[in-house]
Amino acid sequence: SLDTNSMRLASQLTARGVRIVEHVTVPDDADAILAAFRRLAQVTDIVIATGGLGPTADDLSRDVLARLLGEELVRDEAALQAIRAIFRSRGRELNEANAVQAMRPASARCLPNAQGTAPGLHAIHCEGGRAVDVFILPGPSHENHPMIERDVVPALRAQDGYAIRTRAIHHYGPAESEAARRLGVLLDRDRNPLVGITASDGVITLRIRYEGTAVDAQAALDAADAHALSALREHRFAVEDGPGMRSGAPLYGALLRELEHHGATIVTAESCTGGMLAEQLTAIPGSSRSMKGGLVTYANDMKSGMLDVPAQVLAAHGAVSAETARAMAVGALQASGADHALSITGVAGPDGGSADKPVGTVWIGRASAQAVETRRFRFPGDRATVRRRSCTSAAAMLMFHLMERDLEHLLWQVQDDGSPIVRR
Amino acid sequence: SLDTNSMRLASQLTARGVRIVEHVTVPDDADAILAAFRRLAQVTDIVIATGGLGPTADDLSRDVLARLLGEELVRDEAALQAIRAIFRSRGRELNEANAVQAMRPASARCLPNAQGTAPGLHAIHCEGGRAVDVFILPGPSHENHPMIERDVVPALRAQDGYAIRTRAIHHYGPAESEAARRLGVLLDRDRNPLVGITASDGVITLRIRYEGTAVDAQAALDAADAHALSALREHRFAVEDGPGMRSGAPLYGALLRELEHHGATIVTAESCTGGMLAEQLTAIPGSSRSMKGGLVTYANDMKSGMLDVPAQVLAAHGAVSAETARAMAVGALQASGADHALSITGVAGPDGGSADKPVGTVWIGRASAQAVETRRFRFPGDRATVRRRSCTSAAAMLMFHLMERDLEHLLWQVQDDGSPIVRR
Repeated sequence: SLDTNSMRLASQLTARGVRIVEHVTVPDDADAILAAFRRLAQVTDIVIATGGLGPTADDLSRDVLARLLGEELVRDEAALQAIRAIFRSRGRELNEANAVQAMRPASARCLPNAQGTAPGLHAIHCEGGRAVDVFILPGPSHENHPMIERDVVPALRAQDGYAIRTRAIHHYGPAESEAARRLGVLLDRDRNPLVGITASDGVITLRIRYEGTAVDAQAALDAADAHALSALREHRFAVEDGPGMRSGAPLYGALLRELEHHGATIVTAESCTGGMLAEQLTAIPGSSRSMKGGLVTYANDMKSGMLDVPAQVLAAHGAVSAETARAMAVGALQASGADHALSITGVAGPDGGSADKPVGTVWIGRASAQAVETRRFRFPGDRATVRRRSCTSAAAMLMFHLMERDLEHLLWQVQDDGSPIVRR
Repeated sequence: SLDTNSMRLASQLTARGVRIVEHVTVPDDADAILAAFRRLAQVTDIVIATGGLGPTADDLSRDVLARLLGEELVRDEAALQAIRAIFRSRGRELNEANAVQAMRPASARCLPNAQGTAPGLHAIHCEGGRAVDVFILPGPSHENHPMIERDVVPALRAQDGYAIRTRAIHHYGPAESEAARRLGVLLDRDRNPLVGITASDGVITLRIRYEGTAVDAQAALDAADAHALSALREHRFAVEDGPGMRSGAPLYGALLRELEHHGATIVTAESCTGGMLAEQLTAIPGSSRSMKGGLVTYANDMKSGMLDVPAQVLAAHGAVSAETARAMAVGALQASGADHALSITGVAGPDGGSADKPVGTVWIGRASAQAVETRRFRFPGDRATVRRRSCTSAAAMLMFHLMERDLEHLLWQVQDDGSPIVRR
């Protein structure tokens, strides 16, 4: 398959000044892959494919490259030795299927893979009198990532005095349409820098992209940045030079930085999100400096047993209530000795909703030695979406608190009785 | 952006007998999107685009469709009313930006969206004398999913007596190359049914695809299935009719089904995976029938405080050891009253590795009232990969135990001293 990690690859290349002309996903069919290679070679200087280098018969990239070049496959002895060494280190002998991974078209070169058995391939293909670099990289991003820096980037031909510069600015809230209204002409499509907006579970990211003379790049980026700051000041939490990450991860990174800045630790207490908040925080290397751990109290007897949520609170108010969210956060704080606790309890769906507490109703609690607060939310979306938005809302709640920035209402927050907050 | 959810969309359509000719991702550029529409309309009967229907200036799909059709945008009054009603229910007034979402090319129709504000669009475009259905659906899958069943599927033209039938068969282990060796000619690319193989964190999935006369479909699928069973019997854990899911989720679903079958409950105790195992289990609706909860004991004092891991065990053997994995699993069992416990403690990286315990070293413990076992693993890959494979290995360990199937060694398992297991 030629389909993996294209977003990450695109980010990595854009950061190096490459303009992505097109991204194609092609079925596991040799003719379709070959046709895609031929078509792309007519419109670009570099074609990069990922995947299809594995040991099985439906890994077709190697054969297709040979057809594109009109060459036979030959065995690359250095690559074969490298693959054999990997197998030995795992206590296994090289079998015939894996030996295929050492084959390359005669004029191509193998790109060593420090992370896996399949070497990448690089060849120069002549198309209409032009030389087109063709790269085939392994699918897994931890395997292809080093090859891009080491093998692909040096093949890029930069124009003198010309620059592509990008900056990503992250905000939590407001709604995407409200953000667009406030930003106004900054989002016009005929500007340079061009400003794009994406929304992902409450994280509004502006991507500023300047393309032009290198000497003007910094001032142009800064002017667009200043315009965006005046429009969305209270929501901004992070700025990255470069294209920025695609996911909601900047929010969790920003929360961890704030905790470190305060020398403070965190514990989580999760019901409907089932560990997702802890997982998102610990996904970030170095999170152990601030993250003590968490409790996933999915069943009610876990809430009582592990977090000392009183049975009468659960009986009187239910598991999805301000009182339970409060008791979970306080209980987690006490059980762990952390400085801050976040608790999440709600109805993620698809079942379990009621008239009072429809699917998407979530209470989030935040506790420290100084204070406890709870907020009610009503998240639109399916089970996975409600869970993700619960986690981003909890992270934003503590992050803004640590930044001493008082947002009275967060995105998707509702009044404590469940009725909408009317914004003026 | 036209980029979201293409895999899920493809699965849903393939299950309905559609053959995917090509999948393209196009940058947020009107000319590029229009060119892609024109090119695809020449080679297919149906073009489906997702995304670009939002309220901001870089949401271009609506305008591009109008240009493709050579028509003006007109306001759809029914769509406008629906959007206004959604805003009212959230306590907000419709603003101008969102009103754009009620615009459609004159000959197109709006597809109502029960999950969000942006209606989908459907138009018929004439290309070289043929009628091509063009659909533009909202990006989020919970919004476009209902539209596919309701609006797209009825537009598909099936040929009489002809069928495309698919089946997905899931295994845990062996390595992909070993699976391919055992399957032999079944993976040849000129067969019908065609059998594809994918590997995702230890889950080896075979996708059988039959295309031909409807009366022969069942026998052809069954014959390929029987061949696969004889090759990989001890690893097989689930069979799905249809194209199957793409992710590792079938494994967690199978574990939950086994637990339910035994009327048993589970608790997790996680260190390096930071809640990911609990998150994967609770992602599945209905998991509360078996999943009691989990403990994320990221810091060592959490392991002692919440799970009663003795401080002398941590001091003598370290957090990444058989003894700690055992104590975590037993502690979680006792703290929760669950029937089964899984514990994970390891070095996910990028830092924290040593000569004895390099990055990727993970101990997994499994405890019940009857027995405790621990296994040592050495996972290749980066931090995220090590974490994912830790979770799939833990799930497989308990699942196979509940199936009373004794796999002496799981994929990526090493000997207790860290040396490779030599397979003969």
